Amino acid sequence: MNAPLPRLSQELILPQPYLLFLGDTTEPSFAKTAFGLAHWAADQCIGEFTIPGATVTTGLATLTPAEAKEAGARSMVIGVANQGGIIGRSWISALVEALDAGLDIVSGLHVRLASIPELEQAAARNGRRLIDIRNPPGDLPVGTGRKRSGKRLLTVGTDCALGKKYTALALHRAFTKRGVDADFRATGQTGIMIAGRGIPMDAVISDFEAGAAEVLSPDAEDRHWDLIEGQGSIFNPSYAAVSLGLLHGSQPDVFVVCHDPTRKTILGLNGFDVPSVEEVIDMTIRLGSRTNPAIRCAGVSLNTSSFDEGEAEALMKAESKRLQLPVADPVRGGAAFEALVDACLA
Amino acid sequence: MNAPLPRLSQELILPQPYLLFLGDTTEPSFAKTAFGLAHWAADQCIGEFTIPGATVTTGLATLTPAEAKEAGARSMVIGVANQGGIIGRSWISALVEALDAGLDIVSGLHVRLASIPELEQAAARNGRRLIDIRNPPGDLPVGTGRKRSGKRLLTVGTDCALGKKYTALALHRAFTKRGVDADFRATGQTGIMIAGRGIPMDAVISDFEAGAAEVLSPDAEDRHWDLIEGQGSIFNPSYAAVSLGLLHGSQPDVFVVCHDPTRKTILGLNGFDVPSVEEVIDMTIRLGSRTNPAIRCAGVSLNTSSFDEGEAEALMKAESKRLQLPVADPVRGGAAFEALVDACLA
Repeated sequence: MNAPLPRLSQELILPQPYLLFLGDTTEPSFAKTAFGLAHWAADQCIGEFTIPGATVTTGLATLTPAEAKEAGARSMVIGVANQGGIIGRSWISALVEALDAGLDIVSGLHVRLASIPELEQAAARNGRRLIDIRNPPGDLPVGTGRKRSGKRLLTVGTDCALGKKYTALALHRAFTKRGVDADFRATGQTGIMIAGRGIPMDAVISDFEAGAAEVLSPDAEDRHWDLIEGQGSIFNPSYAAVSLGLLHGSQPDVFVVCHDPTRKTILGLNGFDVPSVEEVIDMTIRLGSRTNPAIRCAGVSLNTSSFDEGEAEALMKAESKRLQLPVADPVRGGAAFEALVDACLA
Repeated sequence: MNAPLPRLSQELILPQPYLLFLGDTTEPSFAKTAFGLAHWAADQCIGEFTIPGATVTTGLATLTPAEAKEAGARSMVIGVANQGGIIGRSWISALVEALDAGLDIVSGLHVRLASIPELEQAAARNGRRLIDIRNPPGDLPVGTGRKRSGKRLLTVGTDCALGKKYTALALHRAFTKRGVDADFRATGQTGIMIAGRGIPMDAVISDFEAGAAEVLSPDAEDRHWDLIEGQGSIFNPSYAAVSLGLLHGSQPDVFVVCHDPTRKTILGLNGFDVPSVEEVIDMTIRLGSRTNPAIRCAGVSLNTSSFDEGEAEALMKAESKRLQLPVADPVRGGAAFEALVDACLA
């Protein structure tokens, strides 16, 4: 995750390694960010910190901020969300304790950390940073469409929240395991926390959306791959602007379509059917060929979490036959996933 | 231009009528904004104001800020740009004079008015506003795709800067002349100055791009038309994110393709051909049908400014035959343009 690439001024760079803050959370689904970090950035997670009442754990060692600092932590990441995306009063003394211990605070919540006076004062007192990942980066350029060196893969989707980040991370792990020089390029909050860097594409001003994607995956050696986390869907009536700017600016050589076969309606929008995988392939090639005429679809990442192993196997085989493309679930891995990796690198 | 519609909090509302400021401009092409306002918002322009050295004029009466205020002006609009989009030192005393006379200042330049200490102080001293049209509006919602009442027309293009604003304004004028209840909806800086309201779509954060377009053309009576100024092009590698968010959020019933037959390459981008009108029609229908399955192309607005009248007539006829659609140049008007208006309203 910590590639020795030049650090770009427009990119958000997070201070790693982390102490994960779990608050007083009792509901595991609220701690998805912490679980994602413990899974995908294990080598950057020193431990976890909770306040009384918490029952959720990532399995990492429990450390106080002072102990984590002693062990090398540079920031404490708020790894939980609660309803409303706010910071509970009960969390504030724990966050102040971290600042006093010499850690920065990293947050992906809606509320700005510096809007809480206790945190602003503690940060100033200790010379520490309050890092809001939702902050739009400044000084981004307008896109130029200039062809860059190196290879790029973008995960796209039939909708939001069905595995685009997971798929890009799993492909990055597989590429690296095969000795392919590759970087994961984060475009969303959790992805940025995992990678320790990236650009929150949904927070970028529209005029600079393609330009931000160009900055995110700069010129590289010919054999190098950037594995770019996709956002939204070209067919999502709320977020397609983000998806198209990311597609144009990423100029991918290869894309993988992420799909959840149980999702029939666009998340949160009644009356909008999820498009077919074929429609997404066709439209991604048509729009993506504007900045990379050689764009091709390597296959499909199918979210089969609702199925048992036999059902999932049968479904992936049937879809692969129907589409004449590799179809795999990166969570299940196996030969199907290796075939998808082969197709990406072909 | 001043429709009695509810004023939306997310929209930028400008204080009209205007005094037009021309600075010390000697180059007419730098005064395009002032000319546009004098032409399209004549009833909102009280006069013009210059400083010594200026040779450019809109033909409006020359008034001092104090005289303009007396005559009813509420703001002075900077109607000129210079290279770099900056505010020359020679302009500042004139702008201060306007603030002291009780006028607000409206600017579409890159530099923020309030970043100039003399202006900030004069505005504070007089209780006046410094309005930067490039400022992104706040509190915009995420798009929902919900079908709204009333009818909508969007001008789209094969590229930037080839007549989308002009076409929407000309259609608005023609609709109004025929007694059709219609509003021009501005999405760019000059358009917003003309209409006195609107949303600068290129300054909106990507996540809210479609939502901003939804806010811009709210529910209306069934017989009412919103004529929405398009931005960029779906095929423009720099700005397609803006164009797609605007298309999805506008959910147009009808679109008109704006094209300049002499433009072969995307403005400012070597290596990118301008797409054909047919490609833009096809892609606009495919993408636009996501939020309005009944979307249709009414015809083509052809920028024939490089041709003499005979050539222009022949070209429009040939294009109309080839595309089987009305083709007109709104600057030339005439029967061809009336046929385009017919097709829009059909």
